[in-house]
Amino acid sequence: MPSVIYIGSKAPIKYATAVVTEFEKGADEVMVKARGKAISTAVDACQISMNKFLEGVEIKDIKIFTEELEDRNVSAIEILLGKS
Amino acid sequence: MPSVIYIGSKAPIKYATAVVTEFEKGADEVMVKARGKAISTAVDACQISMNKFLEGVEIKDIKIFTEELEDRNVSAIEILLGKS
Repeated sequence: MPSVIYIGSKAPIKYATAVVTEFEKGADEVMVKARGKAISTAVDACQISMNKFLEGVEIKDIKIFTEELEDRNVSAIEILLGKS
Repeated sequence: MPSVIYIGSKAPIKYATAVVTEFEKGADEVMVKARGKAISTAVDACQISMNKFLEGVEIKDIKIFTEELEDRNVSAIEILLGKS
């Protein structure tokens, strides 16, 4: 099971460093999950972590889908990063 | 070559209908492209077009990457939709 980072409304760099920390703690894979407007932040966080901090980590999979919440539907993304 | 829909700052439904129109005009594949904050809108537009309007269309590929503009870097996404 990969470590999971849930993306909220903080700056992308915050989540990028969270991703980096997971890999530094020994994770082979990290899953970045976001909904709605945070999807853009998720993509930013993954790109920043890979471009600026991590060597030998690549995008293994990207899924987009719709989550049905109680009162509305919301788009979601899951980006799986892993050691290459 | 797939038809290309560039996502801007309009509501997702606008782009969803643009995607639907391309398939109705006979396209086998439609590429949805977005940068920065519009990435969330791109995901919404794809999900709305597939969930509400299109039958037999699926996500063929998703790429995320960094585009280097003159004065800054920006995250980008390309979502390829195609007839299944």
